[in-house]
Amino acid sequence: MVNMTGKQLRWGIVGCGLISGDMVEAIRLLPSEQHKIAAVASKSLERCKEFCSKHDLSETIAYGSYEELISDPNIDIVYIATRNHQHFEVAQMALKAKKNVLCEKPLGMNKAQVKEMIATAKENDVFFQEAFWSRFFPIYKDVKKTLDERTIGDVVLVQADLGLPFMDKIDRLHKPELGAGMALDVGCYLAQLSFFVFGKTTPIESITTVGWKSHDVDDTGSVTIKFAGNKMAQLLFTGCAYVGGRAQIFGTKGRIDIPRDFHCPEHCSVTVLPEEMFAEPTVKEHCHKRPQGDLKKFFFKFTTGLAYEVDGVRKHILEGRKESPEITLDESLRIAEVLDTIRKQLGVTEL
Amino acid sequence: MVNMTGKQLRWGIVGCGLISGDMVEAIRLLPSEQHKIAAVASKSLERCKEFCSKHDLSETIAYGSYEELISDPNIDIVYIATRNHQHFEVAQMALKAKKNVLCEKPLGMNKAQVKEMIATAKENDVFFQEAFWSRFFPIYKDVKKTLDERTIGDVVLVQADLGLPFMDKIDRLHKPELGAGMALDVGCYLAQLSFFVFGKTTPIESITTVGWKSHDVDDTGSVTIKFAGNKMAQLLFTGCAYVGGRAQIFGTKGRIDIPRDFHCPEHCSVTVLPEEMFAEPTVKEHCHKRPQGDLKKFFFKFTTGLAYEVDGVRKHILEGRKESPEITLDESLRIAEVLDTIRKQLGVTEL
Repeated sequence: MVNMTGKQLRWGIVGCGLISGDMVEAIRLLPSEQHKIAAVASKSLERCKEFCSKHDLSETIAYGSYEELISDPNIDIVYIATRNHQHFEVAQMALKAKKNVLCEKPLGMNKAQVKEMIATAKENDVFFQEAFWSRFFPIYKDVKKTLDERTIGDVVLVQADLGLPFMDKIDRLHKPELGAGMALDVGCYLAQLSFFVFGKTTPIESITTVGWKSHDVDDTGSVTIKFAGNKMAQLLFTGCAYVGGRAQIFGTKGRIDIPRDFHCPEHCSVTVLPEEMFAEPTVKEHCHKRPQGDLKKFFFKFTTGLAYEVDGVRKHILEGRKESPEITLDESLRIAEVLDTIRKQLGVTEL
Repeated sequence: MVNMTGKQLRWGIVGCGLISGDMVEAIRLLPSEQHKIAAVASKSLERCKEFCSKHDLSETIAYGSYEELISDPNIDIVYIATRNHQHFEVAQMALKAKKNVLCEKPLGMNKAQVKEMIATAKENDVFFQEAFWSRFFPIYKDVKKTLDERTIGDVVLVQADLGLPFMDKIDRLHKPELGAGMALDVGCYLAQLSFFVFGKTTPIESITTVGWKSHDVDDTGSVTIKFAGNKMAQLLFTGCAYVGGRAQIFGTKGRIDIPRDFHCPEHCSVTVLPEEMFAEPTVKEHCHKRPQGDLKKFFFKFTTGLAYEVDGVRKHILEGRKESPEITLDESLRIAEVLDTIRKQLGVTEL
């Protein structure tokens, strides 16, 4: 049960990897009367203490097991940032302990796990969210407004891509026993974008994936999701090349263009066509700089933007919500279903 | 047989549509001692005379039939710009009359027609080319050099898109009896790009198309062409939205980006990754402004760039070539084969 000390959300961080470090630094960008890093847990107490030392967490409790953190009554929300294949087990444990949970993407390894996790969250009446930080960025809110106002007419197509040549460099990303594969790590961002644009409830007619598995998991996928009513998302993910994260949303009257890093964007432009075919279109630029911070303290690029999500999650919990309207649990279930299909089509056998 | 008056190439233009008008204006951007617009033909003499009058072609012969132009001994090259479904018949006639031929895309309506046209050209020992003007742009030559020098490592992925919301506005584009459909008119540009990058001889493993036919022809297609050796082109074409023609070529060490109008580009950038994953990449910009001219005289945007092709074709003919190295006949045959597959997958029955 939530038992927040006034309006301060007390975070318990499970997993001491690189993203946990960035999360700590992002939480610090927000007022300390609103957020506290109460505890961190690793399977190794030594590693946990190293993490706390590295991030100057002298007032934070270091636990040598996930169970201890989860049973700590001074934790309001558990942030799960273990490796992918552990999300299910840790989240189930935290939810059953009636903790609010923010769990990194992918929520589970497959739809069956996600379904069970959602059921557990509902049974225990706690806040539960997949950590799609993207949805909390101001640019996503601008895009949503533009779509709702039908500025670009009927949206018929989405095209988006994302990738880095890190498949060979990071063990976690190509070892199936660590819950690896690029669909789960990168494809999930593409799937969420297509639902963001075409709505959470538009039926999918088909999913078609072409790609390859050079490793024991999926390296690369070209995915087309066809939605009802002649709407389509064309998506490209890879762990073999630097693919910069451009997203284009095409409507009958114009388009929205996120030129790079659509998963955590600072910019988008809205282009509206003139009546005359070859006349110049009008273009409106949107820009919201990510939160500022000491970038040397962050490992990944742009993760100061995690602060948007952290802030949003706190507000939802304060206002008594059990899920975030930005990324609902139903959507997480649909995303998991898409990822299952993509992985199956790419020949991943351990789903 | 070629019987050029010195070094001047005498053009015979078949078809008096909008692209023929732009071709006339583009030819005029080049020296008159090199190019002459000797004759124009339409199926209606009146319409032909109107065309000549509109484009100030007072010294050009106006023919009221294609046959007359083709049998004119003062024509060195026939430029065919009729509607798609007429290309085959007109080209066959011109090639059999031993004329050099530059024929608009798509060369034929299907692979069988293209195969026959190529055989006719070879039998008659004349120059024959599909009018892929794109290949003559300086940016294409820069891209080729960058690929050959392996600046971006092994190329593994291409992504490109092109479209305009003109499906409902232009009869020719949605009437099957006029050789319509967006694969033939727009998809062809995407197919040529994938061969340009992955080489003319790389085997195709699969072609997968998802899209729709709202008209009696194909409106929109999301196409993935998988090439041997884990290489892939992801392509998007449509007649329902303004899709600006971006092309991205991804290699293991970086990428080439044509930000817009890849079918007739002025710009590209080459991004090379640093060794360290999140360090800043180096970016080199390439820019070649299209030929300058009185843009009011042109109907389509950017067609001053046709002058590159006109100039290239003349040089090849002068040097005795029977095809252009920029776009070979074998490539045209492969492109036709891809378009057949795409159209079939989209449910077009009249191939």
